[in-house]
Amino acid sequence: MLENPLRAIWAAGKPVYNAWINFAYSWSAEIMAHAGLDSLTVDMQHGMADFGALIPILQAISTRNVPALVRVAWNEPGLIAQILDAGAYGVICPMVNTRAQAESFVAACRYPPVGNRSYGPARARLLYGAEYAARANAFALTFAMIETVEAVNNMDAIMSTPGLDGIYIGPADLSISHGKPPATDLTDPDMLAVVDRIVAAAHRHGIIAGIHTATPEHALKMAAKGFRFVTATADNLLLQAGLESVVKKLRGA
Amino acid sequence: MLENPLRAIWAAGKPVYNAWINFAYSWSAEIMAHAGLDSLTVDMQHGMADFGALIPILQAISTRNVPALVRVAWNEPGLIAQILDAGAYGVICPMVNTRAQAESFVAACRYPPVGNRSYGPARARLLYGAEYAARANAFALTFAMIETVEAVNNMDAIMSTPGLDGIYIGPADLSISHGKPPATDLTDPDMLAVVDRIVAAAHRHGIIAGIHTATPEHALKMAAKGFRFVTATADNLLLQAGLESVVKKLRGA
Amino acid sequence: MLENPLRAIWAAGKPVYNAWINFAYSWSAEIMAHAGLDSLTVDMQHGMADFGALIPILQAISTRNVPALVRVAWNEPGLIAQILDAGAYGVICPMVNTRAQAESFVAACRYPPVGNRSYGPARARLLYGAEYAARANAFALTFAMIETVEAVNNMDAIMSTPGLDGIYIGPADLSISHGKPPATDLTDPDMLAVVDRIVAAAHRHGIIAGIHTATPEHALKMAAKGFRFVTATADNLLLQAGLESVVKKLRGA
Amino acid sequence: MLENPLRAIWAAGKPVYNAWINFAYSWSAEIMAHAGLDSLTVDMQHGMADFGALIPILQAISTRNVPALVRVAWNEPGLIAQILDAGAYGVICPMVNTRAQAESFVAACRYPPVGNRSYGPARARLLYGAEYAARANAFALTFAMIETVEAVNNMDAIMSTPGLDGIYIGPADLSISHGKPPATDLTDPDMLAVVDRIVAAAHRHGIIAGIHTATPEHALKMAAKGFRFVTATADNLLLQAGLESVVKKLRGA
Amino acid sequence: MLENPLRAIWAAGKPVYNAWINFAYSWSAEIMAHAGLDSLTVDMQHGMADFGALIPILQAISTRNVPALVRVAWNEPGLIAQILDAGAYGVICPMVNTRAQAESFVAACRYPPVGNRSYGPARARLLYGAEYAARANAFALTFAMIETVEAVNNMDAIMSTPGLDGIYIGPADLSISHGKPPATDLTDPDMLAVVDRIVAAAHRHGIIAGIHTATPEHALKMAAKGFRFVTATADNLLLQAGLESVVKKLRGA
Amino acid sequence: MLENPLRAIWAAGKPVYNAWINFAYSWSAEIMAHAGLDSLTVDMQHGMADFGALIPILQAISTRNVPALVRVAWNEPGLIAQILDAGAYGVICPMVNTRAQAESFVAACRYPPVGNRSYGPARARLLYGAEYAARANAFALTFAMIETVEAVNNMDAIMSTPGLDGIYIGPADLSISHGKPPATDLTDPDMLAVVDRIVAAAHRHGIIAGIHTATPEHALKMAAKGFRFVTATADNLLLQAGLESVVKKLRGA
Repeated sequence: MLENPLRAIWAAGKPVYNAWINFAYSWSAEIMAHAGLDSLTVDMQHGMADFGALIPILQAISTRNVPALVRVAWNEPGLIAQILDAGAYGVICPMVNTRAQAESFVAACRYPPVGNRSYGPARARLLYGAEYAARANAFALTFAMIETVEAVNNMDAIMSTPGLDGIYIGPADLSISHGKPPATDLTDPDMLAVVDRIVAAAHRHGIIAGIHTATPEHALKMAAKGFRFVTATADNLLLQAGLESVVKKLRGA
Repeated sequence: MLENPLRAIWAAGKPVYNAWINFAYSWSAEIMAHAGLDSLTVDMQHGMADFGALIPILQAISTRNVPALVRVAWNEPGLIAQILDAGAYGVICPMVNTRAQAESFVAACRYPPVGNRSYGPARARLLYGAEYAARANAFALTFAMIETVEAVNNMDAIMSTPGLDGIYIGPADLSISHGKPPATDLTDPDMLAVVDRIVAAAHRHGIIAGIHTATPEHALKMAAKGFRFVTATADNLLLQAGLESVVKKLRGA
Repeated sequence: MLENPLRAIWAAGKPVYNAWINFAYSWSAEIMAHAGLDSLTVDMQHGMADFGALIPILQAISTRNVPALVRVAWNEPGLIAQILDAGAYGVICPMVNTRAQAESFVAACRYPPVGNRSYGPARARLLYGAEYAARANAFALTFAMIETVEAVNNMDAIMSTPGLDGIYIGPADLSISHGKPPATDLTDPDMLAVVDRIVAAAHRHGIIAGIHTATPEHALKMAAKGFRFVTATADNLLLQAGLESVVKKLRGA
Repeated sequence: MLENPLRAIWAAGKPVYNAWINFAYSWSAEIMAHAGLDSLTVDMQHGMADFGALIPILQAISTRNVPALVRVAWNEPGLIAQILDAGAYGVICPMVNTRAQAESFVAACRYPPVGNRSYGPARARLLYGAEYAARANAFALTFAMIETVEAVNNMDAIMSTPGLDGIYIGPADLSISHGKPPATDLTDPDMLAVVDRIVAAAHRHGIIAGIHTATPEHALKMAAKGFRFVTATADNLLLQAGLESVVKKLRGA
Repeated sequence: MLENPLRAIWAAGKPVYNAWINFAYSWSAEIMAHAGLDSLTVDMQHGMADFGALIPILQAISTRNVPALVRVAWNEPGLIAQILDAGAYGVICPMVNTRAQAESFVAACRYPPVGNRSYGPARARLLYGAEYAARANAFALTFAMIETVEAVNNMDAIMSTPGLDGIYIGPADLSISHGKPPATDLTDPDMLAVVDRIVAAAHRHGIIAGIHTATPEHALKMAAKGFRFVTATADNLLLQAGLESVVKKLRGA
Repeated sequence: MLENPLRAIWAAGKPVYNAWINFAYSWSAEIMAHAGLDSLTVDMQHGMADFGALIPILQAISTRNVPALVRVAWNEPGLIAQILDAGAYGVICPMVNTRAQAESFVAACRYPPVGNRSYGPARARLLYGAEYAARANAFALTFAMIETVEAVNNMDAIMSTPGLDGIYIGPADLSISHGKPPATDLTDPDMLAVVDRIVAAAHRHGIIAGIHTATPEHALKMAAKGFRFVTATADNLLLQAGLESVVKKLRGA
């Protein structure tokens, strides 16, 4: 029976370590699919992929059957449905600040009677077979981003939305919203306190807590806090860090 | 004078047989343009084409002057206007469930004072000449999809929307919305009864009734019911059915 | 310190002459970047570029460090943020008819606490460096299009929106909205009177008045009226005018 | 240990049924990868794929681990090496008319000391791992096309080329070369006699005999003759045949 | 019966005025197809189109049934056959300096027994129908470029090559080869004398004389000399000239 | 006056540190252009870029005016000229094993009377201005790869080819050709001895010695040996090494 394999990892109490794809490029995505991560997320908000680029990227990831999620650019049901039709294992929706936004997001990911997703799962049906229609609502993961003061204030209402699988913290936006400079690997005590409150709330609501980080070191710390969907790196970050290190060595000689 | 050629077919009381383009690929689209169908529809909702892919597909279809419609991903005026600027003969809008949604959709397809389409018909002006500005409102076909219980309940209000040329039934979504499994070529008597009610209403309102099917056999049945815009096949369906038949013959030997 | 170079031109009291990019093609964009114009604007509304095409076009323009603005297809925060993340120097938003729409547009271009732009300036950070986070709100230009009767009626409310840098007249839509045929280089006295009222209002509100034209002759006239952001040509117009002239000479022989 | 899975099928005495990919499109290629065929061949000679299109097509096929071969446009070592670097399981080379051409082709597919392929197996190394360098010469299949009178006259010299895994008959070119109209599923007795001579020679030389056909019916006949690499269909043929059948049914009503 | 329409123009004693496509972009190509020129030539040597870009460009040109030729990057039979398969009306081959090169070029454009073109006219068969196989050799135009001293010295041998339809002068290369700076619209008396000798030789051999120019004024002069295939402009030249004129007017004010 | 900036670095006696671009993707290329390396080389042999991908990559690199070279897939004058027309600062040609091959390569990079490059420097003329025609022969760098036993045996003949600027060692191919496993950062004493002989010969002939490495550590060693064009890293290597390090840290916890 079709099951989202990430649910099994969570059922075993383990964290899912995810990497972020900002390159709209299928060959680098295929390299990432071979790296041994638990999942990959294609970013259609701050990354470079639009829908035309998404398909070959998802195909590249499917060569290794790594679960691929997509962060959508905006909470729009048209885009969300296209992503799920393309075979995504789940959707991360940015800027979910209210219960109504959370409900709209979840509805866009679920077929009736639960939601209002339109039927036509072009690539998903090919990948997952005839049972996809019946299993899609249970298969597709829904992560709402908590990344503003407003969202934190509304987090119980958001987290209790039926059908919401998890929340995902965007640390840079959360920092800005709190009047701090944008940071990915949070060290500000105030912000860490906010993060602690969010993860605690997620646990209280029985949903997965996810967070964005920039380094495996920080990812491990977040997993230790109870986060179970932890982004640990990104393609562009690895390339930039690698280049910086190379040039430093060359110039330092 | 610029006229949409599909209107002449309807004026003659004949059905328009349409094929569905799910491939975001101009060469297969050109093959479809040579097949002898009355029209082609590029699906930007459940198909693979985004705006970047749409232009070469429409160009490929224009090599044979086959009327090309586009199903938009969502009822958004920005997307709808881009499609008409690109030279589409008409727009099919999914999930039109209320009169307000129908009015918004039609307005997005019409220049003021009728609607609020913004002027800048890049490719349409090249194809249709200087008279396009004056004739565009009459030229562009508007099909609202009836594919939910809510839409059926509101169908008189929707169908009486000024400027709406027709409705288009999405059988799979209509089935799901009625608590049935998704099906394209409907055989469920309850669903067929709903379809009969919709086509009767369309006739009552003097607009074109359209419907999606997966096979020419079912398309002919729907034409016999009075549907005058009938999708009879799709590129991916033909490829998949052809492959299945080939493999069966090879393996059956 | 990171400054938008167009602000310096305006501070010197001079007009910015802009050209319009309708081709979704990086090589013609690079040619335009070498032409010696003050700025270029990629049109994602009536032009051919979608987000996938935008990146190489912006890269091509960056080879000469010409300020590149983008006209977005619609007043949607998701699209607007992507454009700014891609390194655009500013955004032109079509069909801003009300104060609320103007506020929503400006908010989408500004990080909190001023607006609600989400942080993740992929290409902008590479181009503009670490100070981009702090300087982005001052850097990104915001132009609201005044192109309907409704917008003219609301122009004081629109123009007084905090953070709005300027308005941009779309003459064709403005004409249609006033019941006139679409025209780019306006000659109708009624329309010119409307234009005069708009530029006067912009000056009253201390913001930049911009306008779309099709020829340098008309652009100069508009600059003489006080417009300080004046589009003077477009790639497709130049190609079409050039072809027409060539064919006339060849056939006239 | 890395083995080309097609060799196991042949070791078991069974034919490999192959389908031909003429579409330069990764989504239709992925559909073909799910069809249950033994292999797929991307045609870079008369098909639409160039190297840029090849990578996503091969990625799409890799989602199901179907062996993908490529027919190269011409017997050029630069192109052949790129195809193998991209992860192809084998190369079909057109118009191999002499022993020297066969040797040049095989050399281009083999690392020294056997051949002169340049090392840099970008995607192949990712797919097949560290052992690819050592196993590549045994892994990559080499098929020389016999499709002219000259090639038939030289077939013993060609077929005895060390490292050549098989020959592949191009029936249309072979027909034209013999002064007959081009045909894919050969029925001309003269041509069938030539085909019989070729397959007999291939068996005599202990190499695989391959042939292009357009239908599973003809493919089965060719397998019965002893062909062990038999193309049975093509994407564009299936689409065109499907469209023709649909339109006939619609118009015949 | 399938005929190349340019042959009818020549049979009527009239020149074919051609425009050059350097942009690898289907939308500007479609604009050029509407301009009223006799033919268009896509340049794959010094222009930007590779094979992947060629197909949508040719499709765009087919929307108006304008004859499209292609200048190939090099005298390679693999590339030449792909271009003809794609539906080109003819091929212009650069740097044909010897009779042997001319024969190789012509052979690549002709099916046996005349030449050695491989059969598989994917798009040509769709456009031109079943008779293409029989008519292709008469349909496809073959132009050999005369653009070096060596070619001029060998021009009688080149021009008498059976199946060669015409020659095409590349003025810039011809100038460089004669030790002059590159020029497109030739004014150097020595070079004009060479041009006169070439056109006279072409007439003597009963083949079409073609030449590249940059302006309609020069094109008319060349037609007056007896050239019957005259390129009069190019997309990038029109854009660059147009931009230069616009900026001059804006800055001159 | 137009000068290749790498010549100034060499005139100062310093090494050029180069990075290798295997990704056919303009955004990662732009990131590499910001890294502070002396040059970048796009690999069209074992990398993923074909000509269509090359243009946006070169544009991305031009945003920082980093000198971009290209390794061509094969010693073919058609491809080489396209690369130089596209604005490349130089060409690296693989598998130059004989003096004749070296002469053919150099000739393809030089306008007459020195070579036989065809004139039409589309993008180069835009970037480098009117003087490009006169300065191109001095501007374009020519590197012949020494990567086989045959090439080593012929190295004096190759290195003395007039117009050849340098040689470039491909360590993996050189190793295979010597019966060793492929290695990029050479440690085998036999191979290092070969490398020493090559660099000494290059110095004797007064040309630049270049070499491919995979790490800055090895690059520094090679620079210490006298290499003056040293590739120190590659995009895919940095991504893969980064991913490996991340996963190790995550899994090691």
